[in-house]
Amino acid sequence: MTEIPIVRHVLDANDQVAALNLARLNQAGITAVNLMASPGAGKTTLILATAAALAGRLRVGVIEGDLATRIDADRVAAAGLPVVQINTEGGCHLDAAMVRGALDQMPLHQIDLLLIENVGNLVCPANFSLGVHANVVVASVPEGDDKPFKYPGIYARAQAVVLNKADLLEYLEFDSAAFARGVALVNPHAPVWPVAARTRAGIGAWTGWLEALHTQPAPDREEHVAAAG
Amino acid sequence: MTEIPIVRHVLDANDQVAALNLARLNQAGITAVNLMASPGAGKTTLILATAAALAGRLRVGVIEGDLATRIDADRVAAAGLPVVQINTEGGCHLDAAMVRGALDQMPLHQIDLLLIENVGNLVCPANFSLGVHANVVVASVPEGDDKPFKYPGIYARAQAVVLNKADLLEYLEFDSAAFARGVALVNPHAPVWPVAARTRAGIGAWTGWLEALHTQPAPDREEHVAAAG
Repeated sequence: MTEIPIVRHVLDANDQVAALNLARLNQAGITAVNLMASPGAGKTTLILATAAALAGRLRVGVIEGDLATRIDADRVAAAGLPVVQINTEGGCHLDAAMVRGALDQMPLHQIDLLLIENVGNLVCPANFSLGVHANVVVASVPEGDDKPFKYPGIYARAQAVVLNKADLLEYLEFDSAAFARGVALVNPHAPVWPVAARTRAGIGAWTGWLEALHTQPAPDREEHVAAAG
Repeated sequence: MTEIPIVRHVLDANDQVAALNLARLNQAGITAVNLMASPGAGKTTLILATAAALAGRLRVGVIEGDLATRIDADRVAAAGLPVVQINTEGGCHLDAAMVRGALDQMPLHQIDLLLIENVGNLVCPANFSLGVHANVVVASVPEGDDKPFKYPGIYARAQAVVLNKADLLEYLEFDSAAFARGVALVNPHAPVWPVAARTRAGIGAWTGWLEALHTQPAPDREEHVAAAG
């Protein structure tokens, strides 16, 4: 009887490609961060604000993940940043192979920090490693303060949480303490930074964290990833 | 050689259970609507506002879909409505079998209109029929006006669109005409109603549509579903 090799778990193959991505990024001296959020949480605006705040200190490149369109990539390109668009054509998350293909199109020698905007979704992206140095959830005030309780998987996977649209805190019912408790419940170590990406208010804590992550030696960053995805 | 039956497409099985759900609802004289939205678009608040606006005319029951927690079901129960919570435990959408199980727990003789709150997600729910009379997208102003372009699958599947948090239109950058163009591009026949579920402003057009849907004879409603899922 012929033995048939069985690939046991789809994540095994994805994790192997993720490891290749990470090695390639480390070799190029690039720090990569996977941004996960609901649709409309303001990921693209945060990316643009982050790149502007880091100008002259870290050169930012962007991978844009969407089901369809190049709306976000056009915004990023208009800001003069290197950008590659991935269209998943209905897929609810990026995976490591998509990122690998995007890295082929990215001028890696021109960037220090790679920000990857995942598909707007608080469920699926949590289950697929991309081969990055950190996973970050971008929450937003209008979504409400209960999201860490209701989408625990993605919050558990994050090394940090940006709470965007913080300029709306005075207009909307949002209990910041309840939100912080929710994050701490599923993820006791993740910092939470309120940011208004539109005005750049509060952006310093987040960009400071990114700079610190970038200055860590590659082996430390890799361990970081091995633990958390 | 033994013939092995192959179930060719996971949706086939789901569609069969969806048809059973629909037949059961029709027999009970219940109209069912599947509400799909991003996390935090205000589905639960819309459900509560809808039930209050329809009080004395249609008796509303609710199925709440979440990855985890019973936060939403508790809110609905506090309003005195029959409610069943489904926890998908990480799954990014409801399916027909989950709804079938929930129908077993629902006092069907006590309700006219069943509102099903799907998991907060603009991707996965579009691909699974539940066995309902209409699918509705609940958009929200803070998400931005580009969502129909970026999530065309779910907008294409909707019989109607509620644009919630319309009370924020004066505070946020949101181009209502661009949003309407986006909906029309992927779905020329779906009406769009701006609603502020929190204050119930604009709720009449939406609840009027629900009442009209409920008064249609069951065969008409079934054809409606056969065409659109």
